[in-house]
Amino acid sequence: MKTIKHLGEFGIIERISRKIKNGQGVIRGIGDDAAVIRPARGVELVTSDAIVDGVDFLRKKTPAALVGRKLLAINLSDIAAMGGTPRHAVLTLGLVPDLSIVWLDQFMNGLLKLASEWRVNLVGGDISRSKTLWASLTLLGESPAGKWISRSGARVGDNIYVTGALGGAIRGKHLTFTPRIKEAQEIVRKFHPSSMIDISDGLLQDLGHILDESRVGANIDWKSVPVSFGCTLKQALTDGEDFELLFTSAKNIESKGITRVGKIVPRSQNQVKVVKGYVHF
Amino acid sequence: MKTIKHLGEFGIIERISRKIKNGQGVIRGIGDDAAVIRPARGVELVTSDAIVDGVDFLRKKTPAALVGRKLLAINLSDIAAMGGTPRHAVLTLGLVPDLSIVWLDQFMNGLLKLASEWRVNLVGGDISRSKTLWASLTLLGESPAGKWISRSGARVGDNIYVTGALGGAIRGKHLTFTPRIKEAQEIVRKFHPSSMIDISDGLLQDLGHILDESRVGANIDWKSVPVSFGCTLKQALTDGEDFELLFTSAKNIESKGITRVGKIVPRSQNQVKVVKGYVHF
Repeated sequence: MKTIKHLGEFGIIERISRKIKNGQGVIRGIGDDAAVIRPARGVELVTSDAIVDGVDFLRKKTPAALVGRKLLAINLSDIAAMGGTPRHAVLTLGLVPDLSIVWLDQFMNGLLKLASEWRVNLVGGDISRSKTLWASLTLLGESPAGKWISRSGARVGDNIYVTGALGGAIRGKHLTFTPRIKEAQEIVRKFHPSSMIDISDGLLQDLGHILDESRVGANIDWKSVPVSFGCTLKQALTDGEDFELLFTSAKNIESKGITRVGKIVPRSQNQVKVVKGYVHF
Repeated sequence: MKTIKHLGEFGIIERISRKIKNGQGVIRGIGDDAAVIRPARGVELVTSDAIVDGVDFLRKKTPAALVGRKLLAINLSDIAAMGGTPRHAVLTLGLVPDLSIVWLDQFMNGLLKLASEWRVNLVGGDISRSKTLWASLTLLGESPAGKWISRSGARVGDNIYVTGALGGAIRGKHLTFTPRIKEAQEIVRKFHPSSMIDISDGLLQDLGHILDESRVGANIDWKSVPVSFGCTLKQALTDGEDFELLFTSAKNIESKGITRVGKIVPRSQNQVKVVKGYVHF
């Protein structure tokens, strides 16, 4: 088996670079001390997420293409949750020396395929040796000024909505989910959400973030929570990595794929007791 | 010893966030799905560098504050090498569960002290569990459009210059060096460099990058290379992590702290044989 040791640092960079064509807004991509890009229009969004072998995937088990895909997808989901458009990414890799070249190729192919679907440019990065395989990606996006959606804008009386159905990420969806970028942009355009977040740690925990940041409480209509086929309500509420959108809006929304699950109330009253979602430590 | 396991993921984020005050250009910092920042003026620069325990530092030996400092410093050096101004950073951490809280605090203090010296805002990031301790930082910067310096602009007849003295990084300078941001900006203003790079893998290897990207060759005047006190010429040429600047310019520069070390020549003629610098794999 050919391992990355045979390529060396510059061989690896060269191998990755060959797969990349600079897209719109890239003035200077991979190959300099820093990438040079055209600044965002409106405001710039910046997010960063990492994945680690043994925690977020299993090197010997998870298909490498899905690992690469997931790394970008979880970052895309964060830009989606702001109502933004993803633009450019930088990637750092901690590579174990006995990693097969095939694994690296498939990882990059999975990542770059999803990048090309969303017209995201990989503009730079860094490669290190590591005893544990890990990868970190920073994603830049943009949003018209004043149009980005935070976690802190929920107001008493707003309705609480989720996209899609919840639960079951553990059965594979966490590797193959579609980031809700288009849905988020449509939600922003049509429904003027007061707050929005992506569900990465379970509905209850992520709702907790909106409530804390907005200093409000919530009444959840448990029966209305859309549960994925074959899942329990508890899974739908607490499983991590659904990557659906959770948002609040003063509007009464009746739209396919969007479900009303509750209402924002004053903070003291009927405070949701946040059951623990996925805990990382 | 109190370890980060006692804090939990959100406890760690809370502890780090408390140390941070959002500076200029930050519309929304840590605490949302993505940070929101004002776009760069001119062009935006993006660079990313990671450090790994056992490779770039030793957790049990290297002072944690210097590890945090180094992570930012190596990224600052990349922005410097483009002639840019650093602005915002995002940080991802792969933390071993038995890491002491003191280590994490000191790491962040070292990083944030250097950040405040250069008015860099830490605007976001991610924390993962990992069996190997690692950290990755993405640094955004800006440069007036048309004023950034690549590796690819060296022209036949240009002089080759370095800042400072080379060699000896291994004896500690790689942890305590001052990123040459001010020097780089002065070089851009006064000497219109045709190409520039920071010396991270040794003069010869990094000169090799300029020569390759610019499709030129070089004559080096070995006797003129500024060698750090107590180092050999070989160390000055091949030690990694000097983080001085290497640049080319048509001008004849006589300036304190800048040494002419050679001349750019056509590629076929007197090609510098690039002795190996630091090799990462």
